[in-house]
Amino acid sequence: MRMRRLKWAEDYLKTSPSRMMEPEKVKGRWKRKLKTDGALHVEIGAGKGSYSHDMARMNPEDGFIAIEKNESAAGMISKKYDESPLPNLKMIYGDATDLRNWFQNREADIIHLNFSDPWPKRRNAKRRLSSPAFLDQYRDILSEEGEIWMKTDNSSLFEYSILQMLQAGFELIDFSVDYRRDEHPEDAITEYERKFMEAGNPIYRSVWKKGRRKND
Amino acid sequence: MRMRRLKWAEDYLKTSPSRMMEPEKVKGRWKRKLKTDGALHVEIGAGKGSYSHDMARMNPEDGFIAIEKNESAAGMISKKYDESPLPNLKMIYGDATDLRNWFQNREADIIHLNFSDPWPKRRNAKRRLSSPAFLDQYRDILSEEGEIWMKTDNSSLFEYSILQMLQAGFELIDFSVDYRRDEHPEDAITEYERKFMEAGNPIYRSVWKKGRRKND
Ligand SMILES: C[S@@+](CC[C@H](N)C(=O)[O-])C[C@H]1O[C@@H](n2cnc3c(N)ncnc32)[C@H](O)[C@@H]1O
Ligand SMILES: C[S@@+](CC[C@H](N)C(=O)[O-])C[C@H]1O[C@@H](n2cnc3c(N)ncnc32)[C@H](O)[C@@H]1O
Repeated sequence: MRMRRLKWAEDYLKTSPSRMMEPEKVKGRWKRKLKTDGALHVEIGAGKGSYSHDMARMNPEDGFIAIEKNESAAGMISKKYDESPLPNLKMIYGDATDLRNWFQNREADIIHLNFSDPWPKRRNAKRRLSSPAFLDQYRDILSEEGEIWMKTDNSSLFEYSILQMLQAGFELIDFSVDYRRDEHPEDAITEYERKFMEAGNPIYRSVWKKGRRKND
Repeated sequence: MRMRRLKWAEDYLKTSPSRMMEPEKVKGRWKRKLKTDGALHVEIGAGKGSYSHDMARMNPEDGFIAIEKNESAAGMISKKYDESPLPNLKMIYGDATDLRNWFQNREADIIHLNFSDPWPKRRNAKRRLSSPAFLDQYRDILSEEGEIWMKTDNSSLFEYSILQMLQAGFELIDFSVDYRRDEHPEDAITEYERKFMEAGNPIYRSVWKKGRRKND
């Protein structure tokens, strides 16, 4: 997300109650931390954080963790979550290349990738959140019945992701090239999604089951 | 294709040289018939027939068969092919529910589905050319390395087809939600495709390898 640097964010993040300061210390105990017996949702690249907040409100039985690496965005998320706190919602300010440090094997149930940065240049492909190394992480931290939910407006990222996920052995269980053609009140609209919908752009979505690793 | 009934078509089809009158008699011998050692292409629902004609011209090493069940459309195809004949191109006037009567196991190399009728109502799903019974036929008549190339402007048909083909064990090898964003001079533009491109609609495309049958 290209956003103006917010000077207050750095200091704010130091003491924000909704921020998990040392996520590696919660590894294996996220559900207890979030007081949930339901599904554990992990959103990667949460932007301003409204998606996880809305979903946590709509699904009080489930637990939600929003991860964001941009300091200013992370500041906005933590402020939003502090001002309107929910017991089943926390955020992590950090880079999702470290997921295995923060989550135990099979600890997460649903990973959300919403309007991830497209990194259009081939030499930056490794940074895409659906590139092979990221998919490997997701597989490890996902439970056996775990899922990945992915939305994007970017056709190239969508095409790339579909082929990569199939390649990695994930199983496609739902798929739309115009998701907001129908209403989906059960699935919150992200900040980016709202913008693209207003511009009349189609929203692409795919839902994946962990399935078996290729060649297992 | 909704088209005006052409009165001349019925008679014309009776003697058209480019029409294969008894395709079941050519079963197993299509490549010889079309004087080709290359790939055998089968287009199902060819409309006015320009796609196979253009492709046959561009790929003189390959053989092409255009199938169309609508009498008027079939009349237009055969007339077009008779007026500008190509040795590697024939047409069949008939319904593609009978493919196994016309083609030997593993005889075809590429099946083309271009802008197939979407049959939006669920109760008509069986008529969609990517429904399970059709996919079964395709698998039988396709060679081991055989492929299905599918293009459509219809998002619901595209979504349905992707899920069905994965379910049937086909392997997705290429995929686009905006195929004509780039030029693809090697792939002819169909009559419907031209119309949708001019209207500014995205063209969806997927390419499938036969792969192994699910649970093989
Ligand atoms: C284009 S924004 C989308 C924001 C939000 N999901 C939405 O739909 O409105 C992508 C966000 O992902 C964050 N991001 C990208 N890579 C990340 C990573 N490896 N770890 C954590 N956050 C990341 C970026 O900082 C940015 O805020
Ligand atoms: C919407 S049109 C598309 C025509 C052409 N492929 C194009 O892209 O311009 C679909 C065509 O498929 C034909 N068709 C549908 N089902 C068929 C079947 N089972 N066997 C043969 N032709 C079929 C219809 O008659 C119609 O002409």
